[in-house]
Amino acid sequence: MSSNDIVVVGSCMIDFVSYAPRLPKSGETIHGKEFATNFGGKGANQCVAAAKLGGDVALVARVGDDIWGPKYIDNLNKLGVNTDYVRITEGVSIGVAQITVSDLGENQIIIVAGANHCLTAADVELAQDIITKAAVLVLQLETSQDVAIRAIQLCRGISILNGAPALTDFNPQLLKLPTIFCVNETEASVFTGGLPVNNICEAQNAASALIEKGCNSVIITLGSRGAIYVDNKEKFHVCSPTVKSVDTTGAGDAFIGALAFLLATETNISMRRAVEKACLAASDSVTRPGTQISFPGPSILQ
Amino acid sequence: MSSNDIVVVGSCMIDFVSYAPRLPKSGETIHGKEFATNFGGKGANQCVAAAKLGGDVALVARVGDDIWGPKYIDNLNKLGVNTDYVRITEGVSIGVAQITVSDLGENQIIIVAGANHCLTAADVELAQDIITKAAVLVLQLETSQDVAIRAIQLCRGISILNGAPALTDFNPQLLKLPTIFCVNETEASVFTGGLPVNNICEAQNAASALIEKGCNSVIITLGSRGAIYVDNKEKFHVCSPTVKSVDTTGAGDAFIGALAFLLATETNISMRRAVEKACLAASDSVTRPGTQISFPGPSILQ
Repeated sequence: MSSNDIVVVGSCMIDFVSYAPRLPKSGETIHGKEFATNFGGKGANQCVAAAKLGGDVALVARVGDDIWGPKYIDNLNKLGVNTDYVRITEGVSIGVAQITVSDLGENQIIIVAGANHCLTAADVELAQDIITKAAVLVLQLETSQDVAIRAIQLCRGISILNGAPALTDFNPQLLKLPTIFCVNETEASVFTGGLPVNNICEAQNAASALIEKGCNSVIITLGSRGAIYVDNKEKFHVCSPTVKSVDTTGAGDAFIGALAFLLATETNISMRRAVEKACLAASDSVTRPGTQISFPGPSILQ
Repeated sequence: MSSNDIVVVGSCMIDFVSYAPRLPKSGETIHGKEFATNFGGKGANQCVAAAKLGGDVALVARVGDDIWGPKYIDNLNKLGVNTDYVRITEGVSIGVAQITVSDLGENQIIIVAGANHCLTAADVELAQDIITKAAVLVLQLETSQDVAIRAIQLCRGISILNGAPALTDFNPQLLKLPTIFCVNETEASVFTGGLPVNNICEAQNAASALIEKGCNSVIITLGSRGAIYVDNKEKFHVCSPTVKSVDTTGAGDAFIGALAFLLATETNISMRRAVEKACLAASDSVTRPGTQISFPGPSILQ
């Protein structure tokens, strides 16, 4: 049987992005200037981020039987991702994010889960072999909580749960089971039940609160201000390099993918060094437009 | 050289439709329930409406070199449309309408013209042969005014200009050149410079005002209330049959396609009979969901 250093269990989405002078009102038809179609979804993004760094990665996911399903699998194959467990689901469309971006940078997003809703704990069981052999398992919450929980139960390596999108009504196992619970500021606030997370000190407090709720270790990513890490033994903040930001879409996914890659391939890497390097990869990704196509190659980590 | 009874010069669009509980606010991500991708664009819709009734139809249009361009041409070919003059344009996406529909039936639409903006008077010149041989030429305003004007100048048969979407700043030739100027109530109001068009009498007055502005003949479609026709000799209203409406998208295009088919194939048909039958086809289309797939076949006119 095949095995992969990193296994990602999660979502595939197609992002449809319209750029318009402003956001439309109800009942209104407005003319946009540009339209782009991007491969997205947090699961696939994180998987691609690790693969582009040179990671040996497999994805467990569901796509639809529309034109996008086979296209998406093609895209993953070209990037060297093992797609044996990416299943085409009959009679369902691929997950879709319909995004409108205004000239002022405001956005509106509608997510239709599509085939991502069809990913179940049974799919995870089918992939048991590669999950148990993986050094690092990566999960998010664009697919069901049950999927994430079952996958972590099968994992014998390091598990990273990206708590995105944030849930107010969640199974406490989501905090307790993973090796690393990783969220951004907004998500940290939701998972702590509403703690403010507007600066580094508040983020450290929120991370400590999550440790008290049962997390083994917590990373809170802070955009251009880097990230903080907290577990029972240490607590630190790392800075991001200053870059000219062009498009921050998917930066969090670039961070997670890089973190998974580093933990899977550099056995004795310190957590501080891994978080620093993951910040480097995420910062680099925001200097280029797009999501998966903006993720850096191996040279960024050298 | 080939020839076709009906030539449509106009737009091709892909409609991306998200169904969500409500419309999103600025900065908001909401979860939709369903996503659909439909072939659309007023030009192609009208072309398909005529083809499904049994019409011998050609389309002059531009699509992008993305995955949708060839897909769209395939769709037209399967319906028997002559696509010799549907050009794939390099480096441009197909025209796109990104549509959000709420549970309350409210909608928001963003149109990105894409390849439709690349259709020029030069494309029309290239199709001169089929345009001059056509019995009926059909145009709309989702492509440039120059395209419509040049096409009508070449036409030796009946020309139908669907003034949609309405323009406030338009070349007066748009009213004067076509045999029939066809609009809905909202568009009639815009083209008359703001006359109210809320009932049949106001529609008749608006149509008369358009005749005074130089139109040869005017049809104003009134949804479930039928349509009115006005020229220098006659003026009449026809009723639509009462139907259970499921989805009115594309009903106007079903009307125009049927009108073009009837005028092209029944040489001695009266205008009243043609408008009545076109109302019948449009009414039938609203009893089924979707746009092009909801357009009726030949039996509706028997």
